[in-house]
Amino acid sequence: MSSIPKIVILGAGYGGVMTALRLQKQLNYNEADVTLVNKHDYHYITTHLHMPAAGTDSPENARVSISKLIDEFKIDFVKSTVVQIRPQDRKVILEDGTLSYDYLVIGVGGEPETFGIPGLKEYALNIRSINSVRLIREHIEYQFAKYKREPHRTDYLTFIVGGAGFTGIEFVGELADRIPQLCREFDVDPQLVKLINIEAAPTALPGFDPELVEYAMDVLRKKGVTFRIGTPIKECKPDGVIVGEGEEIKAQTVIWTGGIRGNRLIEEAGFETMRGRVKVDEYLRAPGHDNVYVVGDNSLVFNEEGRPYPPTAQIAMQQGVAVAHNLVASIRNQALKKFEYKHKGTVASLGKGEAIGIAFGKKYKGWTAAQLKKLIDLRYLFIIGGIPLVLRKGKFF
Amino acid sequence: MSSIPKIVILGAGYGGVMTALRLQKQLNYNEADVTLVNKHDYHYITTHLHMPAAGTDSPENARVSISKLIDEFKIDFVKSTVVQIRPQDRKVILEDGTLSYDYLVIGVGGEPETFGIPGLKEYALNIRSINSVRLIREHIEYQFAKYKREPHRTDYLTFIVGGAGFTGIEFVGELADRIPQLCREFDVDPQLVKLINIEAAPTALPGFDPELVEYAMDVLRKKGVTFRIGTPIKECKPDGVIVGEGEEIKAQTVIWTGGIRGNRLIEEAGFETMRGRVKVDEYLRAPGHDNVYVVGDNSLVFNEEGRPYPPTAQIAMQQGVAVAHNLVASIRNQALKKFEYKHKGTVASLGKGEAIGIAFGKKYKGWTAAQLKKLIDLRYLFIIGGIPLVLRKGKFF
Repeated sequence: MSSIPKIVILGAGYGGVMTALRLQKQLNYNEADVTLVNKHDYHYITTHLHMPAAGTDSPENARVSISKLIDEFKIDFVKSTVVQIRPQDRKVILEDGTLSYDYLVIGVGGEPETFGIPGLKEYALNIRSINSVRLIREHIEYQFAKYKREPHRTDYLTFIVGGAGFTGIEFVGELADRIPQLCREFDVDPQLVKLINIEAAPTALPGFDPELVEYAMDVLRKKGVTFRIGTPIKECKPDGVIVGEGEEIKAQTVIWTGGIRGNRLIEEAGFETMRGRVKVDEYLRAPGHDNVYVVGDNSLVFNEEGRPYPPTAQIAMQQGVAVAHNLVASIRNQALKKFEYKHKGTVASLGKGEAIGIAFGKKYKGWTAAQLKKLIDLRYLFIIGGIPLVLRKGKFF
Repeated sequence: MSSIPKIVILGAGYGGVMTALRLQKQLNYNEADVTLVNKHDYHYITTHLHMPAAGTDSPENARVSISKLIDEFKIDFVKSTVVQIRPQDRKVILEDGTLSYDYLVIGVGGEPETFGIPGLKEYALNIRSINSVRLIREHIEYQFAKYKREPHRTDYLTFIVGGAGFTGIEFVGELADRIPQLCREFDVDPQLVKLINIEAAPTALPGFDPELVEYAMDVLRKKGVTFRIGTPIKECKPDGVIVGEGEEIKAQTVIWTGGIRGNRLIEEAGFETMRGRVKVDEYLRAPGHDNVYVVGDNSLVFNEEGRPYPPTAQIAMQQGVAVAHNLVASIRNQALKKFEYKHKGTVASLGKGEAIGIAFGKKYKGWTAAQLKKLIDLRYLFIIGGIPLVLRKGKFF
């Protein structure tokens, strides 16, 4: 190890950004060299992406320039794509360079989990980045324009959302709000538009409070959403999906929100994985690699009952804080702290002015829940960017 | 002929609307039954369509609800598509009905002239209606979104405009203005975008003053437009065009502005045509049909040198005025008036704040010409809709 330890953080998502921000605050001058690597020169607020995807908000409001978040006098920023992680050499291969490290933080984000369903990878769109949500928004608008040229093709106006988990439900809520606007804009009869949410599990929002799930489905049904619950997608084709026992639903748009798995970079690096994720130790390190921390979608943390926590912004942020603490402790030869996830609650938006949620042990729904959602979003902006970011972006949330 | 003559006007373009407005003003109560038939319940301002097509203005600003233009106590409006014109039976077959007439005014608009170039009909987009320009705008935006998913595919960022006539040049000017905005919106390097205007004739804007044409091309070149003049398009393919001696230009977007021919309804009705147009008599009637008037794109009027006037909004409007006069005269058994076209000038916009034009025998360019263009547009709004329409739409022009 060189006199000044080198810390490399891969990915500026929730976990990576929190690690960087905390290191920036806690490290003394010349105590470590920190480099943040990210594909884009911006951080995006994943929990807000369902809005620009549906077109109810601008993508600009879901991203923040990294130069506005980190202090580039304290942390180096490299805009590049990670090609390979080589833990044995303590090196990271980038698309345009190589970085060596003493400590590595992996927060490169997950990939869509398609459960081997044929065609999903090829033909379905995913809500996972600024680029992908711009594509979804443009794709949807384009279908309305194309329908006007070929008015017999109602499959242009059928929108299938695969997965009624958190992302699926939030997106469906926004799209249901957006459709009447699009119908006015393109002179389309709203009766012709179909918005179908398909979920293989026996319920929407599996694991959520059943009373709130029922409330959410009622709200969305009133907005025109059709639910097909307990209905697995068997195949995705260029012109629709096959569900259940061979039933075909014609649609030019399929958006898949059915799950996230670990990034292929993790498996390729030789780390031991479960569905592409690393079952990290109590300090959030990859087993057998004392200098490699894994946060966010690629990290697997278990609760007391032995079940993994779902990958959320909330856990990734807490992991970032914990990793920064442990990195500083390592450098100072102090004791590491065990990671303990504190679940503060969950709120799912259902479109404008509607949401459901559980927080502080209480259930919330409707307008109150929607306000709570806004507060959570504003709190996040405050944490990463302080008052200036809240003022700049907060009004859009 | 019944006691009250029935006038049917097909199409609410420049010619049809002007005919209807003048009849509404000039006819006395119960002097005639006037029915206006149009595919949409709105009139669109064709000379403004290049803006919503490029995305520099909303399509809403290029259309006016027909109910705001005509007085429905005086003129019946039927929203339907014309399927067939039967002059021998004095009937018009609509998609959902049949109308009989004593006098007919045909202003159904033209069709793109593709000069038999293979693939143009199938793969090129046309600037010809609200629906078609919404499709172009959405198509262009979608290409930027798709490029971000497949950054090796620069053909997504190549935009070919076929034809450097009036429409082609005006559209290219707008699109050149729009591209920097799109590049910012989608994080695309403007250097990668190609905007190519291809024209078979030996000059852009054939027939226009050469000094002004040169000025226009200079302005557009500075905005990033590449001209390929004297270069015929040999074939249009799903992924580009073949020009000249077999050179292939890869592009996912081809917009064809190369010409207008008469509507197929005209030929199908059995009228004598030249490139689908009716060589009308001096009163604007179809030869051999004293009760059928043809205006706009389907009408062929010759100047003193025996060359046909190009189809423009200006001539269509003057035709509408003349046809209304002659219809009233016919009904009152008065003498018909010969149509004489008065050319008042031509201004072509080149994007924001730039234009070229000839009016009152003088040449104009730059900002002055752009102001002149605005005045012409405002004057049109005033003619068809009075002060209220100028106030409602005028600010966008």
